[in-house]
Amino acid sequence: MSTSAQIGVTGLAVMGRNLARNFARNGYTVALHNRTVARTHDLVKEFGHEGDFVATEAAKDFVAALERPRRLMIMVKAGGPTDAVIQEFAPLLEPGDMIIDGGNAHFADTRRREKELREHGIHFVGTGISGGEEGALHGPSIMPGGSTESYDSLGPMLEKISAKAKDGAPCVTHVGADGAGHFVKMVHNGIEYADMQLIGEAYQLLRDVAGYSPAQIAEIFRTWNTGRLDSYLIEITAEVLSHADAATGKPFVDVVQDQAEQKGTGRWTVQIALDLGVPVSGIAEAVFARSLSGHHALRQASRGLAGPKPAPLAEAEARAFADRVEQALYASKIVSYTQGFHEIAVGSDEYDWNIDLGKIASIWRGGCIIRAAFLDRIRAAYDARPDLPSLLSDEAFAQEIAEAQDDWRDVLVAATRQGVPAPGFSAALAYYDALRADRLPAALTQGQRDFFGAHTYRRTDREGSFHTLWGGDRTEVEA
Amino acid sequence: MSTSAQIGVTGLAVMGRNLARNFARNGYTVALHNRTVARTHDLVKEFGHEGDFVATEAAKDFVAALERPRRLMIMVKAGGPTDAVIQEFAPLLEPGDMIIDGGNAHFADTRRREKELREHGIHFVGTGISGGEEGALHGPSIMPGGSTESYDSLGPMLEKISAKAKDGAPCVTHVGADGAGHFVKMVHNGIEYADMQLIGEAYQLLRDVAGYSPAQIAEIFRTWNTGRLDSYLIEITAEVLSHADAATGKPFVDVVQDQAEQKGTGRWTVQIALDLGVPVSGIAEAVFARSLSGHHALRQASRGLAGPKPAPLAEAEARAFADRVEQALYASKIVSYTQGFHEIAVGSDEYDWNIDLGKIASIWRGGCIIRAAFLDRIRAAYDARPDLPSLLSDEAFAQEIAEAQDDWRDVLVAATRQGVPAPGFSAALAYYDALRADRLPAALTQGQRDFFGAHTYRRTDREGSFHTLWGGDRTEVEA
Repeated sequence: MSTSAQIGVTGLAVMGRNLARNFARNGYTVALHNRTVARTHDLVKEFGHEGDFVATEAAKDFVAALERPRRLMIMVKAGGPTDAVIQEFAPLLEPGDMIIDGGNAHFADTRRREKELREHGIHFVGTGISGGEEGALHGPSIMPGGSTESYDSLGPMLEKISAKAKDGAPCVTHVGADGAGHFVKMVHNGIEYADMQLIGEAYQLLRDVAGYSPAQIAEIFRTWNTGRLDSYLIEITAEVLSHADAATGKPFVDVVQDQAEQKGTGRWTVQIALDLGVPVSGIAEAVFARSLSGHHALRQASRGLAGPKPAPLAEAEARAFADRVEQALYASKIVSYTQGFHEIAVGSDEYDWNIDLGKIASIWRGGCIIRAAFLDRIRAAYDARPDLPSLLSDEAFAQEIAEAQDDWRDVLVAATRQGVPAPGFSAALAYYDALRADRLPAALTQGQRDFFGAHTYRRTDREGSFHTLWGGDRTEVEA
Repeated sequence: MSTSAQIGVTGLAVMGRNLARNFARNGYTVALHNRTVARTHDLVKEFGHEGDFVATEAAKDFVAALERPRRLMIMVKAGGPTDAVIQEFAPLLEPGDMIIDGGNAHFADTRRREKELREHGIHFVGTGISGGEEGALHGPSIMPGGSTESYDSLGPMLEKISAKAKDGAPCVTHVGADGAGHFVKMVHNGIEYADMQLIGEAYQLLRDVAGYSPAQIAEIFRTWNTGRLDSYLIEITAEVLSHADAATGKPFVDVVQDQAEQKGTGRWTVQIALDLGVPVSGIAEAVFARSLSGHHALRQASRGLAGPKPAPLAEAEARAFADRVEQALYASKIVSYTQGFHEIAVGSDEYDWNIDLGKIASIWRGGCIIRAAFLDRIRAAYDARPDLPSLLSDEAFAQEIAEAQDDWRDVLVAATRQGVPAPGFSAALAYYDALRADRLPAALTQGQRDFFGAHTYRRTDREGSFHTLWGGDRTEVEA
């Protein structure tokens, strides 16, 4: 048995297969393993000409095929299957070897696994990989966590197979220790949910308020894609909206059931943000919008509820409205990314990951679903000022929002008046207005809490915790 | 040692002490136990005249003081301390005995504990108790889970010490098996967060847009409290707003730091809703608003962001605006409760609790923080139609929202135009408009997901799952 493979991949479903091919195409010898061995041999039969593969069947042969320290990548389902594969292979490994988990694991699981394997001297490298099947094959955005030592060994290989940004920089960096990579991948997906929801709201407003057809809206998105909104998601929105259903001749988007599905990462992003005390209202509304859309019976029962019916605008007004929607979409997008990067910053503090936020923006510029010109701007903002309190504190973004905000508000007024739901746009604006507020009603909330639960409050004019004797003579006591 | 106590309470901090006194005042003999024994003796010294107490020091004496089957209530902190107390007492108990956990445990912990203790024949009764210190003493709203058998034994005692609704009905019911009680208490608290946030937004709009002073706003809340918004929270809002700070002479609400704190239950309500796929956007915005308010540095850094400054209205306009705010608050409140009851309904299905939603509304009519005339309406809605798809499907509520909605939209337009954050009001309206929408942009979302991840979609016109070959000739295939 050869012992020359630089990397091994076990789990050869589409993501694993494409990553294995990507490594081989880049000159690495790749050991292959899969529970159903036919899949291993099929890969070699079909793609063997692309590079050097070592097909193996037994687990011990797979491990024996790897050069030391071993780099063993597992591409199986998150949860139980990942633990099962780790239990199968870990006993066959030696100190210094690496297990790379390229699935969408919850970062808390990754932290647990990393700790357990570290006790045996094995590096566990939880690695976020974004870009879907195509990205896996042609170059994904890669977010590895784990030890610095493992990155020294793995980094050059990951840089080779990763996407490259327009300036040629590889879309991979050592995110931070243990679960940092999966954490950042999770937030990436949360931001992706928000981006998609905001695009959906823009589409619905252009349809219902401006009265445009899907084909016309596709053209508008194509135009937007040549400007500051230039991004993969805007590009494919135009593709989806311009597509006509062959069977009926109708716009494709009109024959698709309007019930959006989801996997776990968007939900996790919100749940973890709640634990960290970070407001991610835009991401939350995106997750809720998907779940609401799937409550078919509830929606059926609610069809008769009173509300305005939008009256489409005249042509000239519609054009002006479309421009305003672009402003609203852009401003709301800035807020989504502000919230997502805030979550990463707080997570990084909480878990001592020391994450370089500018670098994260940088590696999202290529390969992943949210890749966009916009991320160059975010990178520049953090490069200029690594301790930026939030993206909204960047002068250029603040200036753009300042210019966008009249239109942003106009669009929300139209949505409100005409009864078109815009939960993402409105959550973004409420967040913006709350952040800049001199005073928030939180003072009243604290007063109520002190009233019914003696939870105490702080004062604006001196230190300490105080309680008012609400049930008594209402004097104030130090708590 | 006497063995005649019908109930024992261990953990004599303020909640435990007041519940013990409440039992004694209602004629029960109450065994007392606390880790620091001084607290036990203090209670008897101070309140011994209120009824029959049996002070104990050692755990075994506490257990020996209880009649069989034993009813042992633990009133300690959720989490580790609760587990520790269970481990201390469970070995001293016999099959048929009951442990009642009256703390704010996470319902998943309660399910775990109930299962473990059931194997030893002990009934574990996770019990939500709302009403704060005063409620504990004078009559709280009580939400016990656990077995039917345990409720047969405990129910009459809980009914006696519970709050009574205006019609005399005790504010307690057997919510359902294992963790049902703590689950419902959690959602109660989530709804409480939403109620408080909506009140806060109403206050801020009356202050900034209408230009009223806190004292004037207190009067407005007092008026509202005589109508359909009649509730404990509206009542205490008026009290807090009319209170003047003795030290400065300023309105109390202006000297309190506007950074709201929180414990765990609001956050849990949202996290569990995400797991259950229930959109609870109003509750989420309330939780986020609290965490946002506490990000002091971020808010400081954001003070200079561009935005309108509200220009207060003239007197006659202000009055009309206040009436519209009442409509907006009421409509948003209906939505919050719709979301909260939806979460209970889905949780009940998920865990086979068979929860009677009308009964839950009924036991929240007295004793608890969200007690309100409104809950009688909800009870009536579910009593009339137990399978109501949602509160919005109730004709009376639908009619009220229909009448409120022009004002609701007007208020949101004012908030949007004038830059006053209203995340709760706007999340509620977006939810309402989304539920009644014929088509949602979720169809576009599904199209995008199919484009970048081959996640497939369903069609409106025939069964099955489909995928379009986006990278190829764009024909459609069955998945």
